Amino acid sequence: MKIVQVSASKNYEVIIDKDLLPKSGGYIRERAGGRIAVIITDDIVDELYSDTVIKSLEDNEYNVLKYVVKNGESSKNSENYIRILEYLALHKVSRSDVLVALGGGVVGDLTGFVAATYLRGVKFVQIPTTLLAAVDSSVGGKTAIDLEAGKNLVGAFYQPQVVLCDYNTLNTLTEEVFSDGCAEVIKYGVIASEELFEACSQGIKENIENIIYECVKIKRDIVAQDEFDTGLRQLLNFGHTIGHGIEACSNYEVTHGKAVAIGMILITKASVKLGICEKIVLDRLEKLIKLCALPFDTHYGVSELYQVMLSDKKVDGKMINLVVPTTIGKAILKRVSIDEMKDILNKCFENGGIL
Amino acid sequence: MKIVQVSASKNYEVIIDKDLLPKSGGYIRERAGGRIAVIITDDIVDELYSDTVIKSLEDNEYNVLKYVVKNGESSKNSENYIRILEYLALHKVSRSDVLVALGGGVVGDLTGFVAATYLRGVKFVQIPTTLLAAVDSSVGGKTAIDLEAGKNLVGAFYQPQVVLCDYNTLNTLTEEVFSDGCAEVIKYGVIASEELFEACSQGIKENIENIIYECVKIKRDIVAQDEFDTGLRQLLNFGHTIGHGIEACSNYEVTHGKAVAIGMILITKASVKLGICEKIVLDRLEKLIKLCALPFDTHYGVSELYQVMLSDKKVDGKMINLVVPTTIGKAILKRVSIDEMKDILNKCFENGGIL
Repeated sequence: MKIVQVSASKNYEVIIDKDLLPKSGGYIRERAGGRIAVIITDDIVDELYSDTVIKSLEDNEYNVLKYVVKNGESSKNSENYIRILEYLALHKVSRSDVLVALGGGVVGDLTGFVAATYLRGVKFVQIPTTLLAAVDSSVGGKTAIDLEAGKNLVGAFYQPQVVLCDYNTLNTLTEEVFSDGCAEVIKYGVIASEELFEACSQGIKENIENIIYECVKIKRDIVAQDEFDTGLRQLLNFGHTIGHGIEACSNYEVTHGKAVAIGMILITKASVKLGICEKIVLDRLEKLIKLCALPFDTHYGVSELYQVMLSDKKVDGKMINLVVPTTIGKAILKRVSIDEMKDILNKCFENGGIL
Repeated sequence: MKIVQVSASKNYEVIIDKDLLPKSGGYIRERAGGRIAVIITDDIVDELYSDTVIKSLEDNEYNVLKYVVKNGESSKNSENYIRILEYLALHKVSRSDVLVALGGGVVGDLTGFVAATYLRGVKFVQIPTTLLAAVDSSVGGKTAIDLEAGKNLVGAFYQPQVVLCDYNTLNTLTEEVFSDGCAEVIKYGVIASEELFEACSQGIKENIENIIYECVKIKRDIVAQDEFDTGLRQLLNFGHTIGHGIEACSNYEVTHGKAVAIGMILITKASVKLGICEKIVLDRLEKLIKLCALPFDTHYGVSELYQVMLSDKKVDGKMINLVVPTTIGKAILKRVSIDEMKDILNKCFENGGIL
């Protein structure tokens, strides 16, 4: 077992261990209290893990409700958001009760935003069941839903009472979904820790407890300095600006991790061309991304990506902050105009191909 | 001109003056910056005041957008909330731009909640055009929308950049809408200031600048001590618990101010019967409520009101905090179970009538 203490507008622990689900009710009772616990999950996770969590919650004197959405990014929409709110109100869930996000990033983001806004804020707990959620979305308090016009365009900064990361749940992930999370793990290595980057090369699955622990610590340190994403926290967007563009262009058929992998490669390629980092950084990144069975190619072009990127919430007036690596283990923020961004995109795609 | 400094998670000013609208753009430029200003208003206010505000914003180099909802409480719904968010995204409104709530409480609450959550928070400015919004809803950062299941069940605490209260706008209110705001003014008198209560008896319209100023100062002092509504701030709910019940029973045909007036009378009646305050408090309150052309009677009964009050977000587990006056100028919080609440409601309605 490993524990990371997060200090933000609320202080809480990220508990990383195997076999946490059967004990989840006890942790939630202790950290959140309340009479009713509302599990929000998706249909796939529901079949696998809801019963275990419900039993543990009931053993800890909770009256348990459950709301199940369809698996996939398209569930993180405004209709589900409003439906869940009406469901909570209908069941008279009160300010002293607790919501339990059981699932991946979609469930965590959606539940977190519901918790942030229902009755102007109720308690919630994150139980991430994907690698991506474990290392990234469940920690740090960014909650969101998607609009028709783009991803994560509505949300709130809202911290959970506790994050219960049972990495046994990662064993039921498909290789594809596991890989998806690897992209975020690699991201942490590139922006903050060459040691973590190297550990990934030795195999992420083989060393999962430590790797999750290292990723969460990096995120914790960044969030502690910039909870509300006005500066440093933007480093966590490495690969994400172009990545979100690819997701949007594909109507979210390209998953988040794959899109981020491609985004990291493209922006690193531009960084090499701009003289910000050495070619070896790109080579090492490419090798690790291949090892994790992640893609580094896209058939979308500059003009398509540029159009959707203009809708990204990181565009601030006519400027955008890009995250560019200077070496493996360090990245910087580079503020560019949206016109310069187009030039940079052109650099990414030069020579008729990706590398 | 009078100015109240509000200290909360954000510090800002409430500026109270006549003829502020033609100067609004300058204040907004100074306090909020940005390229785009999005006015959110209702159809009635739009006809009266949008042009003046748009001109002033354009004179201050804003690119102005306008979104108009229908006048009335029913506009504070989840459909309008989502529609406005999609509108902002479609028009590429960015984190550095500003929303302008031009209107009464409905417009202010709705716009504030949009501002709190669009891109996880953008700047906004309140320009209240009703007495109720001027003395209450525009100050203190409570934003909300209604659900099918009840009023204000979703929202956020989110402070504006500045509140521009041009009390000339109150001249175009119908007597009925003006009276509605008087209920909140009387509320401040009962819970915090006998002097204000007495000033109201001399005529609210005749002394409007001072009365708004005194109300906003009382609210400012309470919010400074309890921004997130965990204790003291609940004093502002005097008359509101039963009031919200009446609004809900009437499907919001009884306006907020009228419902609060009835709620204040009913809970004060119960306070007299419980020996918490003297009968003279009830008599003085009744006299002032009559003077302001507000009602103090309802045809809804105990069982109807009790049912809808269970959905109120102030119900916390099986307990509810009631605000009861001890004298004119002072009120206390009384924590009762929902069963006791029913007894108290019965006391309100004893003797086959309201007084």
